[in-house]
Amino acid sequence: MSLRFQIEGNAGNARAGRLITPHGEVETPVFMPVGTVASVKGVPQDVLEELGVQILLGNTYHLYLRPGVETVRLLGGLHGFMAWPRAILTDSGGFQVFSLNDLRKVTEEGVTFRSHLDGSTHFFSPESAMEAQIGLGADIIMAFDECTEYPADRDRARASMDLTLRWAERSKKYFEKHKHEAPWASTEHVGTAAPGCPAERSSAGLSPAGSRTLNSATGSRAGEGARATQSLFGIIQGGMDRELRRESAERTMEIGFPGYAIGGLSVGEPRELTREIVESTLEHLPADQPRYLMGVGTPEEIVEYAALGVDMMDCVLPTRAARHGLLFTSEGKVSIKQARYAQDQGALDPNCACRVCRRYSRAYLRHLYAANEVLAQVLNTIHNLSFYLDTMRRVRHSIQLGEESRFLSNVWSRPKP
Amino acid sequence: MSLRFQIEGNAGNARAGRLITPHGEVETPVFMPVGTVASVKGVPQDVLEELGVQILLGNTYHLYLRPGVETVRLLGGLHGFMAWPRAILTDSGGFQVFSLNDLRKVTEEGVTFRSHLDGSTHFFSPESAMEAQIGLGADIIMAFDECTEYPADRDRARASMDLTLRWAERSKKYFEKHKHEAPWASTEHVGTAAPGCPAERSSAGLSPAGSRTLNSATGSRAGEGARATQSLFGIIQGGMDRELRRESAERTMEIGFPGYAIGGLSVGEPRELTREIVESTLEHLPADQPRYLMGVGTPEEIVEYAALGVDMMDCVLPTRAARHGLLFTSEGKVSIKQARYAQDQGALDPNCACRVCRRYSRAYLRHLYAANEVLAQVLNTIHNLSFYLDTMRRVRHSIQLGEESRFLSNVWSRPKP
Repeated sequence: MSLRFQIEGNAGNARAGRLITPHGEVETPVFMPVGTVASVKGVPQDVLEELGVQILLGNTYHLYLRPGVETVRLLGGLHGFMAWPRAILTDSGGFQVFSLNDLRKVTEEGVTFRSHLDGSTHFFSPESAMEAQIGLGADIIMAFDECTEYPADRDRARASMDLTLRWAERSKKYFEKHKHEAPWASTEHVGTAAPGCPAERSSAGLSPAGSRTLNSATGSRAGEGARATQSLFGIIQGGMDRELRRESAERTMEIGFPGYAIGGLSVGEPRELTREIVESTLEHLPADQPRYLMGVGTPEEIVEYAALGVDMMDCVLPTRAARHGLLFTSEGKVSIKQARYAQDQGALDPNCACRVCRRYSRAYLRHLYAANEVLAQVLNTIHNLSFYLDTMRRVRHSIQLGEESRFLSNVWSRPKP
Repeated sequence: MSLRFQIEGNAGNARAGRLITPHGEVETPVFMPVGTVASVKGVPQDVLEELGVQILLGNTYHLYLRPGVETVRLLGGLHGFMAWPRAILTDSGGFQVFSLNDLRKVTEEGVTFRSHLDGSTHFFSPESAMEAQIGLGADIIMAFDECTEYPADRDRARASMDLTLRWAERSKKYFEKHKHEAPWASTEHVGTAAPGCPAERSSAGLSPAGSRTLNSATGSRAGEGARATQSLFGIIQGGMDRELRRESAERTMEIGFPGYAIGGLSVGEPRELTREIVESTLEHLPADQPRYLMGVGTPEEIVEYAALGVDMMDCVLPTRAARHGLLFTSEGKVSIKQARYAQDQGALDPNCACRVCRRYSRAYLRHLYAANEVLAQVLNTIHNLSFYLDTMRRVRHSIQLGEESRFLSNVWSRPKP
């Protein structure tokens, strides 16, 4: 097995677990920051490590266009290319391709689309999306699916779900045949070095100890002593129909994957409907495998979904909001561009111990934003990610204590300084 | 005295020294990174500390316009505002104002100018420029001068020099009367805390130890036990005329300052002429006081000027070039945007131990630049600053060893990994 998932605590439907990948362990529930083109916009990798990020998400569509899969593969896959020794997950490219409304055409075979960069024509099939993700070399990759639009009537949702199921079979078939071709998959995993990615470059003349991964102290690593490979997750579709979601879950599980994602949500439907579909879909997924809810959410939502039993989430919200000066704090949202903060000497979030809140005032952050300084994006992003990761650590801690009834309230009552 | 300057080594005309300011010590010769609006574009303050930056430069003109002197003053001066506990120098605003060719008018009294931001009208006199710099609270501030344009005939250069001398007197007079008004100047300097700037915010609930300055271990601090103030440097003008430069130096020294800057160079004249004027002007400056050459230069030039006896330099080149993908390395300049680096696995500079060269490949840096990722600016700037600071450390080391004859060659022959 190249992926192990251990459940270490429960509180109601929520679970605290540990996902053991070829590139280190991931404590769940986990929020995965988005590094679209192999960079979490504005944040150096060592800062991500310091924040406690254990897994990053990359977007296959963007990386396929730039710098191209072959370049990433030659540089050792995403881990080597972006010098990130910890775990990585890539999406299938499906969601992004389907977002190109006027630039795509879907057939049974796959999707023809035009690049948002230069208008050039490309084609993704389940097979080519797998080929791309194998070249990128993430620890966890996703089956190629059709993200059903919202709203969609039942016939449309069923047809789309059926297509996703046929594509899931083709994705798995291609993956099983080629899964040993990841840029680092031929490496025997012995010793402490993470495959394909020195944390520091030995070519810079540093001691070999510099190339150890930070997670090596745990001593456990999926696939240790064997040939580790990537792992392919299936994606549940079915629109906003509980019955179709159940059918999608059951038939995807029949195909069989080491983890399952819930796709096709956060596509414009009301928040309450999202929650209903998540809750009902989770009932049909195996309890002993990781469950990944794609593309959510606000700080409140990620807590709520973790309470429902979701193990993995990702969203551009903390990083994108940061770029627009919208900051998440224990006291609510702060729009740092507002003039009211111009002479505010206080920390952005007095209950946050991140390197931004420890050092800078709201007045300084407001000035950086108003003056259009790049450091505004850097610091704002670091804080928002810290807030999300801190939130998830509190959720996990509450689950481990088994505090079912006080779950949400525990998470939101933060210790005072 | 609020500023002490000790010379600790000589090699020919070059000197290795130590400038002791109210906010820590600065080893000279020193290159001062430019943080125009209280931020070295894209680089967090803790990274600057890690790079070994001991003094930063801020631009009075820009800070006066945004966020405004009063805001900075209320937040504890620049040190408190930008959470930088080490030394700071501000320019007088003169150079920037004179760069606004069509937007300014000079009289004996001062300069009327229009903001490049919104076209609003403002006025700088020697007095108001001092007032602004006292409110900003840098450790070293500069007399208000007229930067003579190039080319200028002898009459024009003399008239401009005379004006600068009259303004220097007015600058000093105002400064002497108000120098105790810096935002931190009323603080008794006892113990280890730097005035006006906790390195970490005690309001965030951290231990008081977090508010110590990193330089406190040195135990020596200008003005310790007394009321420290800012220090005002004079500026030598005189165009490209050696005789006027001599006269400017002598008459500025008659007014009397704790340090002297050479201004009005790097304004379009040939490189060889710059060097001639620097060399001849230095002959007339006191050997026991710090000498600051404003607005230079390339890595080769800062080594050369240090060899001539310059103690302090500043330039936007390393930070601005970084934003355009131009990187300085021990093997020469690298334009990282070039396609030839697209699959280059090597470190940017194999002889550099900065956090960028230790971790990332040229291929990754090239990708970040090509994809217009903000991280490109962050990492490129960190490397270029590291290269400049590393260069100056080597220069200083060579001077301390007294290696006059091998001065330049030693600096440029770097140890192999």
